Amino acid sequence: MPDFTVTPWHVEGDIDYDKLTRQFGTQKITEQLRQDIGQAAGEDHFMLRRGVFFSHREMDRILEQHKNGEKFFLYTGRGPSGDTHIGHLVPWVFAKWLQDRFGANMYFQLTDDEKFYSKHDMSLEDTYEYAMQNALDFIALGFDPEKTKIIINTRNIRTLYPIAAQMAKRINFSNTKATFGFTNETNIGMIFYTALQSAPCFIEDGPVLIPLGVDQDPHFRLTRDVAPKIKRPKPALIHNMMMPGLGGPGGKMSAAENNAIYTTDTPDMVRKKITKYAFSGGQSDVAEHRKLGGNPDIDVSYQYLRMFFEPDDAKLESIHADYKSGRMLTGELKQILVEKINKFLCAHQKKREEARNRMGEFLYEE
Amino acid sequence: MPDFTVTPWHVEGDIDYDKLTRQFGTQKITEQLRQDIGQAAGEDHFMLRRGVFFSHREMDRILEQHKNGEKFFLYTGRGPSGDTHIGHLVPWVFAKWLQDRFGANMYFQLTDDEKFYSKHDMSLEDTYEYAMQNALDFIALGFDPEKTKIIINTRNIRTLYPIAAQMAKRINFSNTKATFGFTNETNIGMIFYTALQSAPCFIEDGPVLIPLGVDQDPHFRLTRDVAPKIKRPKPALIHNMMMPGLGGPGGKMSAAENNAIYTTDTPDMVRKKITKYAFSGGQSDVAEHRKLGGNPDIDVSYQYLRMFFEPDDAKLESIHADYKSGRMLTGELKQILVEKINKFLCAHQKKREEARNRMGEFLYEE
Repeated sequence: MPDFTVTPWHVEGDIDYDKLTRQFGTQKITEQLRQDIGQAAGEDHFMLRRGVFFSHREMDRILEQHKNGEKFFLYTGRGPSGDTHIGHLVPWVFAKWLQDRFGANMYFQLTDDEKFYSKHDMSLEDTYEYAMQNALDFIALGFDPEKTKIIINTRNIRTLYPIAAQMAKRINFSNTKATFGFTNETNIGMIFYTALQSAPCFIEDGPVLIPLGVDQDPHFRLTRDVAPKIKRPKPALIHNMMMPGLGGPGGKMSAAENNAIYTTDTPDMVRKKITKYAFSGGQSDVAEHRKLGGNPDIDVSYQYLRMFFEPDDAKLESIHADYKSGRMLTGELKQILVEKINKFLCAHQKKREEARNRMGEFLYEE
Repeated sequence: MPDFTVTPWHVEGDIDYDKLTRQFGTQKITEQLRQDIGQAAGEDHFMLRRGVFFSHREMDRILEQHKNGEKFFLYTGRGPSGDTHIGHLVPWVFAKWLQDRFGANMYFQLTDDEKFYSKHDMSLEDTYEYAMQNALDFIALGFDPEKTKIIINTRNIRTLYPIAAQMAKRINFSNTKATFGFTNETNIGMIFYTALQSAPCFIEDGPVLIPLGVDQDPHFRLTRDVAPKIKRPKPALIHNMMMPGLGGPGGKMSAAENNAIYTTDTPDMVRKKITKYAFSGGQSDVAEHRKLGGNPDIDVSYQYLRMFFEPDDAKLESIHADYKSGRMLTGELKQILVEKINKFLCAHQKKREEARNRMGEFLYEE
C-alpha cells in the first residue's frame, strides 16, 4: 500500500516529493534551472528559491524558446467545488509573477463541469456559482486585463469543445484507466473531461507554460502524449507542492472542517483557526520548548510563512532560528502568521470586492 | 454468431426485424396503434401502412398526451459522414408529415463530432462541411422554418453541453459497454458522445417523439433509463426499417461503392445505378421470368417503390401483381423506379439549391 496518494481528485498522506517526481516521471528543478529562470525573468522568486515550485516538464525548453524570441503563454485553472483557500493561490501568485516578468498572455480555466461530474451532491448551478466566486480571487491578484482571460467550461464550451475533440479522438478508455485509475463505474463525463482540461493548451499557437499543483500533472501527461499526433507543441509544466492543511503535513489544504484558511475569512476567524487548529512543531509545554526548541519542518504556521506569507528570506531565517532554538514559542510564531495572513486578506478582500465590477474585462467571450 | 448486426455505427446482414424488436426490447406497431396514429393525425401515412415504420417506444403515450392537449415536439438527426442518400430521407419525410399533422416543433441534430470520433480519416472540418450539405436536403423537404431548428453539435455545443452533462454524470463506462459494445480501446469522444445525442430530447419542456432508423435506438435506451433520474420525461420513439442498399436486402444503404442513390445524383447516374446495380428479384431470362414471375420481396427496385417512391397503394399493388406474375419484366420495373426517382430528385434538387439562401432561417442560434 502506498503511503501517499496524489491524483487530480484526491491527495492523501505525507507526500514524499522526491518519490512523487520519480513516480510521475517529472524533472526536479535543479539549481541551474532555478538560476536560468531567474536570469530570464530578471529576478528570482521566493517560491522557486524555497522549492515550493520543485518539479517541471520542459521548463528548460520554454526558456530556450524565450531566449530565441518565441513568446509563450500561460495557462492554469481551478476546479470550482468550493470557496478559494490560500492553497489555491500558490500557482496563481506565481503565474502573476510570470506574466509580469515575461509579458505573457494568461488563460485561467474554471472547470465547473468537472466538479459537477466528480461531486455527487453538486449541481452545475452550484459549481458555476463557485466558479464566479473563485474568479474574483483570481482577478484580485492583479493580472493584466489586456493579457488575461478567464474561461468557464460550460460558458466557453464552443471554443473548447472542437479542440477537446481533437484530443478525445486520440485518447481511449485504457489511457484514462492507466492515468487516473478510472473503472467501469466511472461516469462518462469524467472519462471525457480530461480532453477539456487539455483544450486551453492549444488555444493560442505557440508554446504554453502551465504553473500548477503537482496533483494536476496526470492530465497533462495525456496531453503531452497526444500533442505531437495533432502537430501541436507539448505543454510545459512547472509544479508546486501542495500547501498542507491546518491539521498537519499530511495531504493538502482542503474543504474538510477547520483545514483551510479561506480568502473570505474574517480576521477573527483566521486568528481562531490558526490558534486552535494549526498543527504545531513545538513541544508540549513552555519549559520543554525552551529547552528542546520547535520543529519548523512540520510546523504548519512556519510552513505557511515559508510557502506564501513571508517572502523576505532574512526575516524567515530569523523566525526559523528563533523557533528551532526555542527562543520563539508556538504562540508567538502563530501570532506572526495571523498578522501576516490578516494583512494579506485585508488588502485581498478589498481588491476582491472591486473585482465584482471588473468581471467583464476578464471573461473570455467566445 | 448472429446472422445480422444493428448498432448505431454498423448495420450488416439480412435483418430479421421481429427478432430485432425482441432483441432491442421495443414494441411492434400494432394495427390498433396504426389506426390511432391515423385518427390523431387525420390521415394515414403509407410508411405506417406498409410497415416501414414498424416499431416504437411509448408512441401510445404520446397519442394519449396529445389527446389530453399536451403538445409534443419532434427530434431526429443525421451523422454527417457523407452526402445524403435516399435512405436518410425516410425518417425525415415521416417527421415532416408529423410536423404538418400535429403542428409540432422539430429539432434536427447534425452530429459532426460523432462522425469525427468514429471515422478515422475524417477531420472536424470534413464532417462540418457534410453537415451543411445534409442540412440542405433536410430544408428542401419543406419543414416549417417557424417550427424547425437545425442543431450542429460543434456549433450549438453551448446549448447542448450543459444538458449532456446531466446525462453524462449518470451513465458509466459499463453502461456504454453493454449498450454499444464499447471496449477499452474506444476513444473517449465516442464514449461521451451518447450524452450529446440525448441532449435535444430535453431542449424543450414536455414530451418528445423521435422518428428514426432503428439502428439509432440504443442511444435512447440509455436516455430513457436516465430521464427519470433528472426528472424529465422519457423520449418516445418510432422506428423505421433500414432502406436496403442497391446490392440487395442485406444491410442498409451506405456509402459503399454503387450501393446508394444520392440526392445529388444526375438522371443519368440514377438510370445507370438502378439498371446496373439494383438487385433484382426476377428470373435469369425473359422466358423463365414470364413463366415463374419475379419476387418483389427481395427486389430492391420494388422495395424502393414500396418504402419511398410510390405512395399510391393501388399503383403499387398493380406493380406487385404484374411483377410477381411475370407480366412485368425487371427492366420495366426498373424503368418505373428510375422515372419516379428522377422526378423526385428533379424537384428536390431545385428546392435544395433554394435552401442555400434559407440556411439562416433554420440554424439554431444559441
